[in-house]
This record gives sequence, structure tokens and C-alpha cells, in this order.
Amino acid sequence: MKLNIALLAGDGIGPEVVDQAVKVCDAIANKYNHEISWKPALTGAAAIDAVGEPYPDETHEICASSDAVLFGAIGHPRFDNDPSAKVRPEQGLLKMRQKLGLFANVRPTFTFPSLIDKSPLKRDRIEGTDLIILRELTGGVYFGERGRKDDNNTAFDTMTYQRFEIERLARKGFEMAMKRSKKLCCVDKANVLESSRLWRETVQAMEKEFPEVTVSYEFVDATAMRLIQWPKGYDVIITANLFGDILTDEASVISGSMGLMPSSSVGSKVSLYEPIHGSYPQAAGKDIANPLATVLSAAMLFEDLELTKEAEEIRRVVNKSLAEGIVTEDLAEGGKSYKTSEVGDWLAKNI
Amino acid sequence: MKLNIALLAGDGIGPEVVDQAVKVCDAIANKYNHEISWKPALTGAAAIDAVGEPYPDETHEICASSDAVLFGAIGHPRFDNDPSAKVRPEQGLLKMRQKLGLFANVRPTFTFPSLIDKSPLKRDRIEGTDLIILRELTGGVYFGERGRKDDNNTAFDTMTYQRFEIERLARKGFEMAMKRSKKLCCVDKANVLESSRLWRETVQAMEKEFPEVTVSYEFVDATAMRLIQWPKGYDVIITANLFGDILTDEASVISGSMGLMPSSSVGSKVSLYEPIHGSYPQAAGKDIANPLATVLSAAMLFEDLELTKEAEEIRRVVNKSLAEGIVTEDLAEGGKSYKTSEVGDWLAKNI
Ligand SMILES: CC(C)[C@H](C(=O)O)[C@@H](O)C(=O)O
Ligand SMILES: CC(C)[C@H](C(=O)O)[C@@H](O)C(=O)O
Repeated sequence: MKLNIALLAGDGIGPEVVDQAVKVCDAIANKYNHEISWKPALTGAAAIDAVGEPYPDETHEICASSDAVLFGAIGHPRFDNDPSAKVRPEQGLLKMRQKLGLFANVRPTFTFPSLIDKSPLKRDRIEGTDLIILRELTGGVYFGERGRKDDNNTAFDTMTYQRFEIERLARKGFEMAMKRSKKLCCVDKANVLESSRLWRETVQAMEKEFPEVTVSYEFVDATAMRLIQWPKGYDVIITANLFGDILTDEASVISGSMGLMPSSSVGSKVSLYEPIHGSYPQAAGKDIANPLATVLSAAMLFEDLELTKEAEEIRRVVNKSLAEGIVTEDLAEGGKSYKTSEVGDWLAKNI
Repeated sequence: MKLNIALLAGDGIGPEVVDQAVKVCDAIANKYNHEISWKPALTGAAAIDAVGEPYPDETHEICASSDAVLFGAIGHPRFDNDPSAKVRPEQGLLKMRQKLGLFANVRPTFTFPSLIDKSPLKRDRIEGTDLIILRELTGGVYFGERGRKDDNNTAFDTMTYQRFEIERLARKGFEMAMKRSKKLCCVDKANVLESSRLWRETVQAMEKEFPEVTVSYEFVDATAMRLIQWPKGYDVIITANLFGDILTDEASVISGSMGLMPSSSVGSKVSLYEPIHGSYPQAAGKDIANPLATVLSAAMLFEDLELTKEAEEIRRVVNKSLAEGIVTEDLAEGGKSYKTSEVGDWLAKNI
């Protein structure tokens, strides 16, 4: 297969982790006779510095004409601590999600047998966890009108949802549940928010289309608690943009490290693959960041292209590296650790 | 001391848990020579059924003229599963918070020596946790304009903050931090939300007033993760209404049970004390709910009235009940358990 993959390394540790995923993908291509042509493009603070905006048109063209996008991370403390900055890296991410029509963010949470005791949670609570949070990604308070009023003394953001936005996300959730344990949980705050009530009403109306799926409804505060108490109680969770942002980061502690959790964003022609972690600026340039979340995101990429063997091969070699302790310092617990680039090299060599 | 306390039992398990707190307070009053006059009043679904609205004027008058309010819980599944209901129990809670000017919700998270192994989290991660989440309670998306548009196909909620709302909450946070470990963490989503940028900007501007306090800023998604990974890293957290709702429920898993975590809501003349758990309808009427969160909320009530010995006595007897296994079934782990009312009786007798 011939593949064009847009490569958006972004900020902080983005370039380092993306480099390792490239090594792994190239090794896979070599073994399974594919030809990957990588198309690097600018995004985030890196793009602001180079061309003044975080998701330049040229980057969009590269993404839109590729078979998939592999994304690192964006964000820079320089902007975080300046609430008045006009242009910010995150705007690039949001613009990209919107322009590529990536309305569904798929974030699986699972455990790794060899890491299970590294989790802050007890083994019996998490062993066997296998859930997916399907986060709405191009609507909600991330995209509603926002601004200042009253001489800069009032700020507002608007949380808006349209029925069709909820429907298309929920449909993916129902379909996913059908292929898994047939359990769907809609997480909202319908006891307070009108937009959540539209979520609940819309999902309720779809239940009859999928009679085999058991649907439950939970308030986001309760889910934030139950997700830690008993993650095995969940199969597929569907939720709004902001709630999904919070719950997926929270869920990452189950696996023991945020540095392990991959994601895909889908919805239109081209899909995007990225680790759920951020740009982790403190670690940038030090060759210490964990590349596995990005490598596992690449596995999701192959999976979605129905290159199942390739995806499995990546997961196999990742598990092997964990079992043999070829890990970055976040997973080493004071034991021997490897550099980001060394982990990447090891993975590529073992494919 | 002569005390008038408004008693708002509310829905679900509310009446049962509040009853036990009353027994405990009466025992305290007896021992320390206070006179408590309880003023029961309607709220929640119970009030809707009785008089058609969840926070009747009469209830407000009783609250406003009391020295404090003891609150159970509100909420009923009948409303949760009917997104089109016009009157809902939660509106009562929100109206009450607003009309009583309760802009700051104080939610401590701590561990109990005798329960530490019941937490889903590992002992070394949580032992010694002592943090307070100070949640803004009368602003944000809970109180902004909301509604439907486009023939009912679009729903919106508005997340609004005014500078003074952030300032008064943050000031409480700074003051609290000064009395504790002098660490304040402002949790927001300033990389996306304008209202969060106003939070960050406002808190930044206040830093110079409290030079001894070390202030940090975090995005809510990161906090949702770190709170579980390393709760001991936090001292006082200040945050917006919705974020506080999610994070405080999440934090309750640290102590091992939501049935243990008390809260106070303050801001104006009269303060309110309530467990952080909800109405838990599945358990209502069964005499099985854990009353300790409400009992410990009563301890916060005495504390705020500067009746420190009384507050300590309540905490002592609660710890004693836990150590001796006089607990409801949620904490019994299959061992011997006691009824809600039996726990209340035991506590009162041991004061
Ligand atoms: C960087 C930020 C804007 C982004 C988000 O909130 O969506 C990130 O946290 C994520 O989850 O991908
Ligand atoms: C019942 C509900 C409206 C309420 C809230 O969201 O504030 C509850 O979850 C709480 O935290 O007190």
C-alpha cells in the first residue's frame, strides 16, 4: 500500500515522540511492503513562530490531501501564562479539528499486564479495564461564541450543541458498542445544562434504532467518581467536548501513565492520530518523554486502514518493550531507563 | 449558645442522613449546654410535590433567618430521565445557593486512618492527603443564560464570570492557604475558555497581595489526572462552579467513599452544610445510607461558629465509630454492617 501521512510534530515533546512513531511505521512499512511518504507540516507555537499562525493554510492543505495525519502535541507555557495573548497554539488544534471535520475523538483506556502495579489504583480495581471514551470534538463550549463585556470585567463562553452533532457522535458510539459489550453510557450534566438535556433527549430517541445496546445515563460528576472506583463498569462512553477532555485525562491514570494512551480523531475523509498527552514543555528536548502513546496512536492508524496485522505487530512490540523494561524514566520507577530515541530504535529493530 | 438551624432534608436518602446529624447535634448541645431549635423546611422534589416548586419562599425565609442551614440532598430520577421537565429539584438547590449568597463551596478531602485500605487508590499515594477544593458556587455555566433555538434543534448554556465573582472566591482561597500550607492552585481551562482567562488574569493580579502564598495554575484536564496520581501535591484549589462539581466528586474516591465527605457553602450571613453526595434514590427509605458525610458537615457548622471543641468531639466520635466498625454497608466490605439509624444512635450515645 502507498500511504501519504501528514506529520504534525508541533511543540514541546511533540517532535521527539513523533520521531519514534515514524521509525516504527517505517519498520512496519518495510516488513509488510508498504510505502509511506511523510509530509511534515507546521502547527502550534512552532507555526506561530515561523509564520504567525498555529494552523497555516499550507498545513491544512497537506493534511486534507493525505491519507492520515500523525500529530504530536501543541502548547507552550509562554501563552498559558499570558491570558491576553491574541494568537495561541491551541487555536491551531481547534481549527484543525474543525476544518478536517474530526467530530469524534476515540480515546481507549486499557491496562498493560506488565505495568498494572504501576497504577496509583489497586490491581483488582483496574485489571481488565477496557473502555472507550468517545468525545465530541468539534462542538460545545470549545467552539461557541466567547468574549468580554463590561469594560473587560465580564467574560463569557457559550456551550452550544445542535441535534445533528449529538446524533452523529452518538451513532458512532452505538455502532462501537455493537461491536463490543453492547453497553453505552451517555455522560452529561442534564440536571443543570440545557445542552446536556438535548444530549439526553437525542440519545434517548436513538435507543430504539439499537435495541440490543443497553444505554445508561450519568451525570459527569458521578462518572468522574465511578471511573476511578470501578472502571470495569464502563464499555463505551459518549460525551461532550469539555467533559470528554476532563474524563479522558482522568481515565489515563488507570493505565498508570498518560504517556501510554493513544487516540484517533475521525469524522470525515482524513483521520488524525495523536497521543492524549500534551506538549509537556518541562521535558522538551531532553529525550526523556515516553513515545508509546504516539506509537500506539500509529497502531490505531493502521487499524483504521484495515491493516490489522500491522496494528497488532505494533502492539506486540510495545508490550514486549514494557515486559523487558525498555522504558523511559516515567515508567522505570527508579530502575534502569532508556531515552525516548532508544525506545524508538528498540521498537523499530524488534519489528 | 442558642442556635436556630434550618433543616432541609430534601429527597432520596436526604431525610435519613439528616436525621442522624440531628441526633448527633442534639447530643452535642446537651453535653456542651447549647440549645438548638430545628426549623424543618421543604426543598427539592419533596417541595415540588407539596407546593409545586423546589425552593419555596417560605423555605427561603426560614433559611435566611436561621444561624445556619443543614441540608440533605436533592434530586429524583423521575426528573433526570425527562429532559423536558419544566420544574426540577436542582433548580431549588441553585436558587437557594444564589438567594443565600453562598458563593463559596468548601470541600475538604482527607483520609481516615481506619479506612485507608478501602480506597481504590494505593495507601502510599493517599495517606496524609489534606486538600480543600474551593468551588465557586453562584456563577459560571450554572447561572448563565440558557435555552433552545432553531425549532428546538439547538441548545445553549452560557458560562459567564465577572471579575468580582472570581476575586471574592480567590480571596477566600488565598486566606485559607495562608492558614494552611500557603499553596494555592487555580484550576481552569485558560487555553480554550475566555472565562478561564479572566480567572487566570484576576488571580495573577492578586498574587502580590499575598506574597507568601505560592500560586500555581493548572488546566482542569491535567488536574483531573494529578488529583488521583498525587493528591498530596495539593493544598487549596480554587476553581469555577462546573469544574469544582466534577473535581470534588472525583476527589471523594480518595477517602474511599463519597458517603464520608462533608462540605460547607459560605459567602453571606447564613452558611449551609451538606454532604457532597447526592440523593442516591436507589437507597432511599432503606435505612442503609452512610450518614457520616452529613454528620461531618455538622462538625463544619460548629467549627464555623467557633465552637471548636464541639466540632472536634464530632470528629472524634466519627473516627471511633470507623475504628470500631460501626459502619453502614458501603464501608463494611461484606463484614458486619449497621443501619443508618443505628450508626446515628451509636454516635449520639458516644458523645
Ligand atoms: C490542548 C487542548 C486545547 C486540548 C483540548 O482541550 O482539547 C487537549 O487538552 C486535548 O485533550 O487534546
Ligand atoms: C445536584 C446538582 C445540581 C449539584 C451541583 O451540580 O452543584 C450537585 O452535584 C452538587 O455538587 O452539589
